[in-house]
Amino acid sequence: MTVVRSEVRPGVYHDSIVLMQLQVSLMDLPGVLDAGAVMGSPENLQILEANELLPETLSGVRAGDLVVAVKAESEDDAARALRSVEALLVRGGSEVNEDFRPRSLSSAARLSPGAGWVLVSVPGRYAAGVAREALELGRHVFLYSDNVPIAQEVVLKAEARSRGLLVMGPDCGTAIINGVGFGFANRVRRGAVGLVGAAGTGLQAVTAGIHARGAGVSQAIGTGGRDLQAEVGGVTALQGLDLLARDPETRVIVLVSKPPEPAVVGRLLAAAQRTGKPVVVNLLGYAPPAPRLGSLHFAASLGEAARLAAELLREEPESRSPASGHRAEARDFGYLRGLFSGGTLALEVLQGLRAFLEPLHSNMSIDDVLLLADPSQSEAHSILDLGADEFTVGRPHPMIDNDLRLRRIRQEAADPEVGLILLDVVLGDGAHPDPASELAPAIEAARAVRDVEFAAIVVGTEEDPQDLGEQVESLARAGARVFRDTAEALEDLARRRPRQPGVEPPPVPLDAFQSPVSAINVGVESFFDSIVDQGADALHVDWRPPAGGNERLMEILSKMGR
Amino acid sequence: MTVVRSEVRPGVYHDSIVLMQLQVSLMDLPGVLDAGAVMGSPENLQILEANELLPETLSGVRAGDLVVAVKAESEDDAARALRSVEALLVRGGSEVNEDFRPRSLSSAARLSPGAGWVLVSVPGRYAAGVAREALELGRHVFLYSDNVPIAQEVVLKAEARSRGLLVMGPDCGTAIINGVGFGFANRVRRGAVGLVGAAGTGLQAVTAGIHARGAGVSQAIGTGGRDLQAEVGGVTALQGLDLLARDPETRVIVLVSKPPEPAVVGRLLAAAQRTGKPVVVNLLGYAPPAPRLGSLHFAASLGEAARLAAELLREEPESRSPASGHRAEARDFGYLRGLFSGGTLALEVLQGLRAFLEPLHSNMSIDDVLLLADPSQSEAHSILDLGADEFTVGRPHPMIDNDLRLRRIRQEAADPEVGLILLDVVLGDGAHPDPASELAPAIEAARAVRDVEFAAIVVGTEEDPQDLGEQVESLARAGARVFRDTAEALEDLARRRPRQPGVEPPPVPLDAFQSPVSAINVGVESFFDSIVDQGADALHVDWRPPAGGNERLMEILSKMGR
Repeated sequence: MTVVRSEVRPGVYHDSIVLMQLQVSLMDLPGVLDAGAVMGSPENLQILEANELLPETLSGVRAGDLVVAVKAESEDDAARALRSVEALLVRGGSEVNEDFRPRSLSSAARLSPGAGWVLVSVPGRYAAGVAREALELGRHVFLYSDNVPIAQEVVLKAEARSRGLLVMGPDCGTAIINGVGFGFANRVRRGAVGLVGAAGTGLQAVTAGIHARGAGVSQAIGTGGRDLQAEVGGVTALQGLDLLARDPETRVIVLVSKPPEPAVVGRLLAAAQRTGKPVVVNLLGYAPPAPRLGSLHFAASLGEAARLAAELLREEPESRSPASGHRAEARDFGYLRGLFSGGTLALEVLQGLRAFLEPLHSNMSIDDVLLLADPSQSEAHSILDLGADEFTVGRPHPMIDNDLRLRRIRQEAADPEVGLILLDVVLGDGAHPDPASELAPAIEAARAVRDVEFAAIVVGTEEDPQDLGEQVESLARAGARVFRDTAEALEDLARRRPRQPGVEPPPVPLDAFQSPVSAINVGVESFFDSIVDQGADALHVDWRPPAGGNERLMEILSKMGR
Repeated sequence: MTVVRSEVRPGVYHDSIVLMQLQVSLMDLPGVLDAGAVMGSPENLQILEANELLPETLSGVRAGDLVVAVKAESEDDAARALRSVEALLVRGGSEVNEDFRPRSLSSAARLSPGAGWVLVSVPGRYAAGVAREALELGRHVFLYSDNVPIAQEVVLKAEARSRGLLVMGPDCGTAIINGVGFGFANRVRRGAVGLVGAAGTGLQAVTAGIHARGAGVSQAIGTGGRDLQAEVGGVTALQGLDLLARDPETRVIVLVSKPPEPAVVGRLLAAAQRTGKPVVVNLLGYAPPAPRLGSLHFAASLGEAARLAAELLREEPESRSPASGHRAEARDFGYLRGLFSGGTLALEVLQGLRAFLEPLHSNMSIDDVLLLADPSQSEAHSILDLGADEFTVGRPHPMIDNDLRLRRIRQEAADPEVGLILLDVVLGDGAHPDPASELAPAIEAARAVRDVEFAAIVVGTEEDPQDLGEQVESLARAGARVFRDTAEALEDLARRRPRQPGVEPPPVPLDAFQSPVSAINVGVESFFDSIVDQGADALHVDWRPPAGGNERLMEILSKMGR
């Protein structure tokens, strides 16, 4: 017959790693069948209960109390196990350097005024408070803790941003700052690839992959898994990209994340373009619009991201000029209006533009693109599929009949905010016998009145009934830039910086990334150990939950206005 | 002062191209400011009205009546224009060979018993009826018409499938069958690339791109834009893939579409894998899980799809063996259970498996993957992120503590339906000091009882505190296959054919794709012209709306049971 016995030690705090070691040691004792050692939060008590380690509900246990429970073969075995807890805890902690341990973050900060980094891995409910204190002390935060409410994340990151500080996290598993890994991190050589990642093991897999390919890492900045949600808006990722743009050590950037929210993707990719450095992008679940867009190189997997980064590093900067013969002038354009006869081409262009233009409108509905209230009136940047039902009912398809397009070219060209009109010209059997004969004069007429740019994507072969060369020639003579596929056109547009609000975060100073790492660790002790193992300077805070983990008392203290 | 005058010609039918030519000719006449020429459907009358070409609502006009309207500078100009309609119609039609014109599809079919193809481009409301008649006559259908209700598409495709026939469409803009373009098509050389496309101009852009790269096209099969919606289920795309798999001329396949519904993607990619030929996949808006998966090669743009297809054609078949050293045995595996400590790795594997495994379950929620009701119990193929909150509350992360994984390995291995257990092993600072020392014995123990396969993705560097080589060695000794990234593991899995229901459509005979094209055209006359221009055999039906376009009469006739 098995017995289950438990014991509560009020106010005794240990971190989860120490408790895990205790649990394993207890299970190794003779006659012990199962064991649990947790801090007494309601969730933890539930887990003990689910594992049949709490025969009856304990009352009066607080989150700051240690609860130890054993299931054993006899009453004696259980009693012996509980008696050995103290000894096991001492044994478990024996390897730790206990030289001197400040009891609070503020005293640690006084002792280590040069420590630019605070690692926080205390339980979620306390984490935001510790992180806020670190920011107030002017330190960057690596916030490993999970279960931090998203509203607290938003507030913390706004605070950090206004102070020119980073909050990596919450739920940030990894970072490599100036050669030192925080949290979980692989040892990789130093080098010229800088990374921003909203995906912990993703960042680890890519840094390890870069190392395996002989390249190295300048900085790897974690953002926490929720940074790219609309509510948070990618604050840390945007700060990270800006940092890497300014960091002279970083020559190639990698951006990796779990599925980001569509609303954030555009802003993120625009910021990536603005770095002016090649950026390898791997956003899991995001369909890249092209293999490459301006300085963005899209990877379909973590492994490919590592490979591309290593390759780009080897490339000489001059060989990175656009593949197409079209060298773009580095000038702004006004609003873009795309007037397409081919739905797929329109959609491909629309998907591509999402990476760098906003606000985008269309008569085609995709994710975060705004559906035009009235397809007959463009707004801001608009991409129209003129072959859609609302345009073709009762009239021939725009691939046969240019009438609708000719009208629309006149309409768009008359809008003074429009800077660029993009057309497709699809040749072949069934299509208009000579589309350029109608489109070219319209382009010429529009350009005679005002300096509006035209670009045309021509799809066809030299075997088509229309003379392909003659069509291209005639459009070019009228003043249109001619591209042979959408990727080429997108590549050209992406290289130019459209007139759009560039919301730059206040810059985070580079110094903490360029000087030797010095960190304060609050929470899981093994994170302190591994920083010391890596030869960096660190101080561990002997942290305990405020008010002994008593939630009501904590609330009262917090209301008394710290 | 301008005047607007209109005229109704009861029962006179012309197709939209002829009417467009008439309209353009009318606008060229002196004094004419605008003109319209449409069949008298309510939608068309609304368009005239919106263009201020119908000062008062016409009553008693039917869809089978011709309506001509002009806006002119004077009463005289308007009257002269309307008087010239007859002459303009004759002029417009003068180029057409009027030798002999059957009045119905059935008489055309009798005249041309060898015509394997019927092109249908009559107005949407009549299109399904004509297509059904073509199927009953045993002919494949190219259905250009749009505005066909999706319910009719479902019925038509079920009928076609049961007869071993194809319905390309509705709203199918292009196809190239045995060298002859249907609808809108570019002239491309014949070759060894076969295409299936649910994207009209997409298919045109890829075929033109293949031609531009010196390669050629065997068949290009359009499916219509809605084929990959869940309701239709990709019937035509699946038939097309099956056809190209069997077609000896086709060596490389390209699959291109506008955004498909997630529920259809898995089935489609599994069918693509089953062809046994290299397949270039470009599904707009679908995030590829890897650059390559088994025989699937993912392209991010239409241009890249063309480039990849041309490249694959040049490759010798033997050089297409897997890049990794792991030659997969061509044997089935049972259910796959993935037990991950890294969330991003788990997600990357899950995204990849969607391309070839179903039913898939997970504790992570993405699109069409089924969320496990109880994460502690796997179902069918399951991929678990053991670092998710539901597993980590109150216990250390599985990257530090193997306890949860060891239990779960025992649990999964005990399930007789499980054939393969997939783990990740993430090394580095912060992680468990020697994960293989705990995982390898568990693998060995499981394999001692039953022939269950193990595979491990190991992320780490040789600088990591754990000995990378030793970790890999130890896992391999225990009997696990070891991969260095998720793409490598996915590649291996994709090359093996999992035990899963292979729903094959009844095969469409190849003969209509291998013999010279002979077609019957019902609808837009220029499609007939271009088939004849291409040197193929065609017959045009002098089609008129049934019952003179009188909808009530049509309904009565149809209820009388034809």
